[in-house]
Amino acid sequence: MRQFTETDLDDLAIGAAILGTGGGGNPYVGKLLARAAIREHGPVTIVDIDEVPDDALVVPSAMMGAPTVIVEKLPSGSEAVEAFLALQEHLGREITHTMPIEAGGLNSTMPFTVAARLGLPVVDADGMGRAFPEVQMVTATIYGIAATPMALADEKGNRVLLDRTVDNRWTERFARSVTVDMGSTALVAQYALSGRQLKEAMVPGTLRLATELGALVRAARARHDDPVAAIVERLSGRKLFAGKIIDVERRTVAGFTRGRALVEHAGEELALEFQNEFLVARRGEEVLASVPDLITVVDSDTGEPTTTEELRYGFRVAVLAAPCDRRWRSAAGLALVGPRAFGYDFDFVALEERAA
Amino acid sequence: MRQFTETDLDDLAIGAAILGTGGGGNPYVGKLLARAAIREHGPVTIVDIDEVPDDALVVPSAMMGAPTVIVEKLPSGSEAVEAFLALQEHLGREITHTMPIEAGGLNSTMPFTVAARLGLPVVDADGMGRAFPEVQMVTATIYGIAATPMALADEKGNRVLLDRTVDNRWTERFARSVTVDMGSTALVAQYALSGRQLKEAMVPGTLRLATELGALVRAARARHDDPVAAIVERLSGRKLFAGKIIDVERRTVAGFTRGRALVEHAGEELALEFQNEFLVARRGEEVLASVPDLITVVDSDTGEPTTTEELRYGFRVAVLAAPCDRRWRSAAGLALVGPRAFGYDFDFVALEERAA
Repeated sequence: MRQFTETDLDDLAIGAAILGTGGGGNPYVGKLLARAAIREHGPVTIVDIDEVPDDALVVPSAMMGAPTVIVEKLPSGSEAVEAFLALQEHLGREITHTMPIEAGGLNSTMPFTVAARLGLPVVDADGMGRAFPEVQMVTATIYGIAATPMALADEKGNRVLLDRTVDNRWTERFARSVTVDMGSTALVAQYALSGRQLKEAMVPGTLRLATELGALVRAARARHDDPVAAIVERLSGRKLFAGKIIDVERRTVAGFTRGRALVEHAGEELALEFQNEFLVARRGEEVLASVPDLITVVDSDTGEPTTTEELRYGFRVAVLAAPCDRRWRSAAGLALVGPRAFGYDFDFVALEERAA
Repeated sequence: MRQFTETDLDDLAIGAAILGTGGGGNPYVGKLLARAAIREHGPVTIVDIDEVPDDALVVPSAMMGAPTVIVEKLPSGSEAVEAFLALQEHLGREITHTMPIEAGGLNSTMPFTVAARLGLPVVDADGMGRAFPEVQMVTATIYGIAATPMALADEKGNRVLLDRTVDNRWTERFARSVTVDMGSTALVAQYALSGRQLKEAMVPGTLRLATELGALVRAARARHDDPVAAIVERLSGRKLFAGKIIDVERRTVAGFTRGRALVEHAGEELALEFQNEFLVARRGEEVLASVPDLITVVDSDTGEPTTTEELRYGFRVAVLAAPCDRRWRSAAGLALVGPRAFGYDFDFVALEERAA
């Protein structure tokens, strides 16, 4: 158990955006919201998963929708609390903990807003060890845990509950339509878990890892050292490429931000394809990295991560890749988040094998 | 209080489809479902609104979606019960009565399926005195009653709850998206009412009127008399036109059946525009009748009503119009269901005034 204060926020927001692989929401927005909530309501307690009682009721809090819209439609935080309360009333039981559902600049800090306002502890864990664009793409799905009942709320006062669905893919389908109706963003409360389920099915320590990554970047900058190398080393990853962004195609479709960016250096090009998050990095026909492994774009000097909606012509970036949580590399994991789950016609090859 | 039996069903289905103004679902489908439920569970009790205690919890049951799809996707009846149970669990109170939300071949009989299966009485009332395509188009909206919490269920096992919305138009928006995701049809439970609200805000006696209309048609046929004249007389309406259908344009868009039909006789043409229900009847530029007044198409010989998804080239039909419930003609009523609410650029003129 530890106190999470305003000063931890900077490190967390940067580190979570690195793990967020281009998605998970804008870190600046996330930081502002969480800071305002902590200033108003005081610091938040973080607990490790083994500190959570088996009979706890843990509910992750997150923002859902197209990152392009999220940056233009700053949430007030009340919507997140509304989604939470809608689910709590529906369950008829008091929620004891919240947590992030994914690593990401906004979605790692959103639970702190809810936690500060409602006086709940945040569990140091998430459901991905990174960010993914769809509801079912959570390690909990591998363990047969339902996203439902799931609550969605918007800034206008609408609250929708997905009570029971055939499976988590159906939940994604309904949630996406409702999110689009809510204006392409929604605040959600989903994957209500017992403490026992949390320990079995979620990814532990994501907040600690993200905060550590953020601190490493900050320290490297202060030493005039290479923040990019520090990130790669901490994640046992690889630097795939460095260069200038020379083209970005991006569109907001069905509640997602989809597109493609080209990075160029000395006549060579790297293509990045994304659906909220970066999915595939290719040089010509050769795939250098793909989901579920992490692909992250950072400023080549400062190590500051760039989300897919921020990519602009002329940015000088480094493209990094890192191994995902090992559960994603299982058959069940790849069925959910492997290249084929995103419509690609190739099988997953682990980053370490591609490098070799 | 009276018993509703299988033999009443034929009359009700025909009469309700007449009031259904082309929508409200296919009467044959509605009859089959209700008959099966009554055969299995026994007759259903109908109560008049003044027999309902003020503290009763009345929940209308209905099918929502595109009539073109409804006829191809026969509901089993279990979905209607699921929607009902989802709402009951969410409310945490036992529902005491059900009722139709609209008059229509399917939607007037759907509550009998739920009532027979759950052993509940059906209230002789509805929310329109006719059928309309959208959720907010219910007299209850005029009285400030919310459609939410609203439950939607499908045949696959999905259940969605619209917990709280800004207004009934927002409920329509979410419900429509969810219905499209469910395969363009859904079974719904909505507008939970106290007995007191029921008496103030709903249209009484719709089942009695529909059953009487069906009986009149049946009797006229037996006497080789004119069923069309019998309908017109009972509804204090007018026969606008009779002729052959020479053209039908129809498409399923965003969960609705939309289109236009042309009826021809002796070189004259009548155009009918519809969104699930008939909205406007025109001869050339002249509007002969429009929403919220009732426009109904029946077989010119038998008086059998034709829904908008059944219209076919060559059908010989009579086009009838009749005055709507007077509340629809108020300013608040017309704002909800007048011609402008459907995108037309003209004001409502009552049928009686047009005739004069």
